[in-house]
Amino acid sequence: MARDLRDLSCCAINTATLGFQVPIGKVIDAVAKAGFGGIAPWRREIEGGDVTAIARQIRDAKLKVTGYCRSTYIPAVLREDWRKNVEANRVAIRDAVTLGAETFVMVVGGLPKGSRDIKGARAQVQEATTELLALGKSLGVKIALEPLHPVYAAERSCLTLLSEALDWCDAIEGKTDNPWLGTCIDVYHVWWDPNVRNDINRAGKAKRIFNFHVCDWMVPTTDVLNDRGMMGDGVIDVKGLRNVAESAGYSGLVEVEIFSADNWWKRPMDETLRISAERLATAS
Amino acid sequence: MARDLRDLSCCAINTATLGFQVPIGKVIDAVAKAGFGGIAPWRREIEGGDVTAIARQIRDAKLKVTGYCRSTYIPAVLREDWRKNVEANRVAIRDAVTLGAETFVMVVGGLPKGSRDIKGARAQVQEATTELLALGKSLGVKIALEPLHPVYAAERSCLTLLSEALDWCDAIEGKTDNPWLGTCIDVYHVWWDPNVRNDINRAGKAKRIFNFHVCDWMVPTTDVLNDRGMMGDGVIDVKGLRNVAESAGYSGLVEVEIFSADNWWKRPMDETLRISAERLATAS
Repeated sequence: MARDLRDLSCCAINTATLGFQVPIGKVIDAVAKAGFGGIAPWRREIEGGDVTAIARQIRDAKLKVTGYCRSTYIPAVLREDWRKNVEANRVAIRDAVTLGAETFVMVVGGLPKGSRDIKGARAQVQEATTELLALGKSLGVKIALEPLHPVYAAERSCLTLLSEALDWCDAIEGKTDNPWLGTCIDVYHVWWDPNVRNDINRAGKAKRIFNFHVCDWMVPTTDVLNDRGMMGDGVIDVKGLRNVAESAGYSGLVEVEIFSADNWWKRPMDETLRISAERLATAS
Repeated sequence: MARDLRDLSCCAINTATLGFQVPIGKVIDAVAKAGFGGIAPWRREIEGGDVTAIARQIRDAKLKVTGYCRSTYIPAVLREDWRKNVEANRVAIRDAVTLGAETFVMVVGGLPKGSRDIKGARAQVQEATTELLALGKSLGVKIALEPLHPVYAAERSCLTLLSEALDWCDAIEGKTDNPWLGTCIDVYHVWWDPNVRNDINRAGKAKRIFNFHVCDWMVPTTDVLNDRGMMGDGVIDVKGLRNVAESAGYSGLVEVEIFSADNWWKRPMDETLRISAERLATAS
C-alpha cells in the first residue's frame, strides 16, 4: 500500500542532491517553492552560520527537516581522538535540535588510519552511539544509523549491512515500542543485499526506519562516490524497496539524495528539483 | 593452527596476478621455478590453444591446478541467450577437466541489460549451477561459486555474500559429506562482512571452501576493478581470515590473485612472484 509520490508533501530533498551551488537560504526557498514537504541539510551549510535563523526560515517555509547530515566519523587510533569525534557529534546534535531535525544521520566512519581491526572500529562506533543516543533522547532528536555500501567499509563506514545496523539498535537501545535509535535506509547502499527485503521489513516492524533515501545505481558507475543516478536511470528497484518499507509501516518522507559530480550537480537547481519530483512519481 | 606459508607448496598463483604479459607456457615455467605449488589459469590463456599440451606442461612442472577461471556470465534477458551462456560454461568445464583443475570457478554475472530484477538473475544462476554441477560431477571437476564484492552486483555478480553462496550450495546440492559444489572465497570480496568469520567457519565445516584467494584492499582504492593490493599493503586482516578457514578444515592451496593495472601488472613477472612469496609468508 505504497503512497502516491505525486504528493510531494511525502517527499524531501537532501541538499547534497543540489551540489551545494548556492547558500542554504536559497536552497530552502527553491525546495519549498518546488513543493517538497521536507529538506535535509548538511553541516557544511549550517555550521558557522546563524543556525537559529536558518531554522526559522525552514519553519516559515513549512518544510520538515527529515535529517541533519551527518556525523563526524567515530573510529580513531587514540582514545583522545575518539573523544574529540564524539564531542563534535554532540555539538552537531545540538544544531540538529535547533533545526528541528527529526533525526541526526550517522555515517559512522571506517577504519582508523593504519588499522586492520574492523571489529574494533565497530566497537568504537557502538560505544559512541550509546552516548549520542542518550544525548539525542534527552534533547528530542532521534539517531539514525546509516549502513553504507560495503565499497565504503574501509574509509567511510564500518557499518555496512542493514541487518547489522538493526542488531546494533537492539543491542544498544533494547526492544522498545518508541525507539530513539533507528536506521537511515538508502537504496543505493542496500539494494544488492539478498536479505534486503527481509531486513527492511524487520526495520519497519521495529519502527526503526527513520529516514528513507532514494537515488539509483548507474551502469556503468564511473565513480562509486559521486556518480549516483536519478531514480529510473539505473538498476535499483526503488519502488519495490519503498513498497516493502511502507508495507512494514514506514510513513516518513521519501528523500532524494544524489551525489553526482558530473551530471546533476552541474544542472540548474530548479531542473534537478523538477526532475526529482517527476521521478519520485514515476520511478520511486 | 594455520600453516606456515613459507612453504610455497601450500601456495598458488592465479595467473591474473601477472597481468597476462606473456603466453601461458612462460607463466607456467616462472610459477614453477619460483617454487609455488599451484597455478590457476584463465580461459583467455587456454581457449584456442592446445589444451592437452598446456595441461601436460603444468603436470610436468608438478603444479596443481587449483581452479580454472572463470565462468561465462549466466543471466540473460532471453532464454536462448541463457542457454548459450550455459553451453559456453559446459565447454569450459571440459577444458577444466583436461587441465586437471580442482575446480571450475564461477563468477556468475550480474543483471541482464535493462533489468532491475536481481532476484530473477539469481534464479537464473541457480538453475544453471544445478546443470553445471551435474556435468562437473560426472567429469570429475568441482564447481566453486565465488561471491563477489557487492560493488560488482550490477555488472559482474548478483551473488555477493558468502552466506548466500552457502545457502545456494545447500539448496542445490543438499547436505553432503563429499560436496562437489562449494565456494571460492576471496578476501577482497568478503573482508568487510560483519558475518565473514562465521560464514568462513560454516563453509569450512561443510567442506565447501574449494579455493581461497588472497590480495588486499588498498586505501584509497583508485579503481574497484583493477586496483587491488599485495597482501600487507592494504587493510584486510588476511592472516586472520585464513586462520578461520584453516581452523575450519581448509587444507587447499592459498592462491594469490591481484588485479592491479597500474602497479603489479607493470612489474616484471619474477618480481611479482618473489614479492608474492614474501607476503604470503609475512602478511597472509
